[in-house]
Amino acid sequence: MLARDLGVSRGTVVEVYEQLIAEGYLTARQGSGTEVARSAVAPAQPRAEPTAEPTPRFDFHPGVPDPTSFPADQWVRALRRALRSVRPERLGYQDPRGTPELRFVLASYLARARGVATSPELVVTCSGFVRGLDLACHALRATGARRLGMENPTIPIHLEVVAAAGLEVVPLEVDEHGVRIEMVEASRADAVLVTPAHQFPLGSTLSPERRTALVEWATRTGGFVIEDDYDGEFRYDRQPVGAMQALAPEHEVYAGTASKSLAPGLRLGWLVLPDHLVDEVVAVMESFPGALDQLTLAAFLTSGGYDRQVRHARLVYRRRRDRLVAALLRRRLPVTGIAAGLHALVELPGGVAEEEVVARAAGHGLAIDGLGTFTAPGQRHAPALVVGYGRPPDHAFTTALARLGTVLRG
Amino acid sequence: MLARDLGVSRGTVVEVYEQLIAEGYLTARQGSGTEVARSAVAPAQPRAEPTAEPTPRFDFHPGVPDPTSFPADQWVRALRRALRSVRPERLGYQDPRGTPELRFVLASYLARARGVATSPELVVTCSGFVRGLDLACHALRATGARRLGMENPTIPIHLEVVAAAGLEVVPLEVDEHGVRIEMVEASRADAVLVTPAHQFPLGSTLSPERRTALVEWATRTGGFVIEDDYDGEFRYDRQPVGAMQALAPEHEVYAGTASKSLAPGLRLGWLVLPDHLVDEVVAVMESFPGALDQLTLAAFLTSGGYDRQVRHARLVYRRRRDRLVAALLRRRLPVTGIAAGLHALVELPGGVAEEEVVARAAGHGLAIDGLGTFTAPGQRHAPALVVGYGRPPDHAFTTALARLGTVLRG
Repeated sequence: MLARDLGVSRGTVVEVYEQLIAEGYLTARQGSGTEVARSAVAPAQPRAEPTAEPTPRFDFHPGVPDPTSFPADQWVRALRRALRSVRPERLGYQDPRGTPELRFVLASYLARARGVATSPELVVTCSGFVRGLDLACHALRATGARRLGMENPTIPIHLEVVAAAGLEVVPLEVDEHGVRIEMVEASRADAVLVTPAHQFPLGSTLSPERRTALVEWATRTGGFVIEDDYDGEFRYDRQPVGAMQALAPEHEVYAGTASKSLAPGLRLGWLVLPDHLVDEVVAVMESFPGALDQLTLAAFLTSGGYDRQVRHARLVYRRRRDRLVAALLRRRLPVTGIAAGLHALVELPGGVAEEEVVARAAGHGLAIDGLGTFTAPGQRHAPALVVGYGRPPDHAFTTALARLGTVLRG
Repeated sequence: MLARDLGVSRGTVVEVYEQLIAEGYLTARQGSGTEVARSAVAPAQPRAEPTAEPTPRFDFHPGVPDPTSFPADQWVRALRRALRSVRPERLGYQDPRGTPELRFVLASYLARARGVATSPELVVTCSGFVRGLDLACHALRATGARRLGMENPTIPIHLEVVAAAGLEVVPLEVDEHGVRIEMVEASRADAVLVTPAHQFPLGSTLSPERRTALVEWATRTGGFVIEDDYDGEFRYDRQPVGAMQALAPEHEVYAGTASKSLAPGLRLGWLVLPDHLVDEVVAVMESFPGALDQLTLAAFLTSGGYDRQVRHARLVYRRRRDRLVAALLRRRLPVTGIAAGLHALVELPGGVAEEEVVARAAGHGLAIDGLGTFTAPGQRHAPALVVGYGRPPDHAFTTALARLGTVLRG
């Protein structure tokens, strides 16, 4: 009857009934006909999306590169090259440490560009720095570590990750020569997390004396240094200072990332580990970056494309920094910290309330952080802005700077 | 003096000294000259690589697709399309649930191809099924779940992941109609993990009655069903049976993956969640698939390339299955389970020791699993082989089959 009503063949109706029964929408019992299954409920109401925060007109949040600088064409070509010569098993389930091609090329790049002393077997890839920190903390905890010294000020999410991994955070003060070593000595920490190339957010570099002292502390106490080399490739006033890692590879976890040099969205980072921590890290991994991104980065590094990209980005960011410094000097606002990276620390005159400047900036469509965002609660700090100059695209940078000037005129 | 000895300018030597001091290799003190830093130790000896297992000549391990079937050229084109129209912020730090483009396209694909009732806000991407299972278990545990019913036999790594997430595993027996519902009822489990489309490894499909009964159990007890739809796209004898998820979206976690349809190396999977579990899952995520792979998959789905790939793969694997079944029938070995997926269960005659056949196969360069690999320790099972026919490339399949025939002749 249904077939006649619908003007289709009997076979079609039978097939549809069988399919609906197989999928559980209908129930058929011998002798009692076919019914709609009671469990075939209507799908849930769609979830209400959280209302998105209004996007600021100009974004000076630190730590994010210009997304328009991603070398899209070269990346596509590198993927094509990688796929042309890929060993088929690389597309299967893989070595948790990462694809051998990338680990090999990274070991050689890091030795050449950052002075890291390592070999491919000690390189582990992960989906970005935060994930690498998470892995390192879990691995250190598994070997008995309980307390991690961390620079103050620092990035709040890093504090969360360390605490979630079960480590107690010991705040360490930072001055213009980097983390203060006497605080490390007094901390009874099992490991410390530092940003030797460019302290975030204060912008200092760890001095030669303190590098030596930190390594001496680690070797004497059996401690560990986690080196966050997030900005190591972006030094503007001189040849970049090499990584600390080579001073004591057995006491260091070196962490790097493609988030600044290429794009955070890639979710690609790497750890260089002491031999005995490799298995500990692998044991706590339960997700891995995609093989294609890894093979593409390997091809991009091999072709020299990565070096060209870093050189180009260095030039762009250096010009932006110079323009920012000049614009602020005209308002007699000093920029402190070394000429490096994607952010600058701008000291505000005494008596100016940092929060008010941040709120005024927001009123002008500028997203910007005060130093307070990165300072432990309850700790005092001089009023300052942390200006990230990476994110605004080139075409908007002049306007963004002018707008910042307007805000700071007040 | 050094400059003269080396025949270089004084400036070069001074610069090198400054660099070495800055990097901590030399220490310079006023009045006492420059010395090699005591901490500048030699790098560690390279770690010995574990000796790799010899690669089998022909690999019949189940659960792995033919890596040579990856649509490399189309994937590169999809990446190029995706990058041409990408919104720059997609390359920045992203929504932990995944890129909106992919979640939108996945919701629509899953509705169309698998009958899943969902919307983009309830889709979360992750790096493969195992990672998705890990997330689901952690989220369920956070909402109070303690016991997870799991099919026996099943995949050992799944057992490990569930236990590591703090859930107690309750084994559930499986017959030719899928998991036995009376065991679910008796299990006092808070949730069950099932493979309704194609039980792994026994190869049954969950019957309509049991689908209804399982959903009834979940709604009555407030329980959850985790649906592992790993093989849902690969049915050969009829239209694929849709996912169970639409029967009770509020009580289901649906899990899919690109590992079988594209490549495991992509590390891309997806969960479809009930509304109240989305935030729980996001809270336990700490790593995310790369944005480029997600955007590329979205472009690949939108263009219809993914559907073409699945149709093509279905044809290839169906032919392989037919050939395998025919070859085994000639040896009077029955293949059980539905015509689907990438593996077949081959019952061995009574009295034949499974382990001996597996060992004999290894002697002939064939990697193959016995059913025992997937059975809980101590549980009895009829001797059988789990033959994965996905992995050997097309050009080697005839030889691989012939070799398997030789092994089974004994």
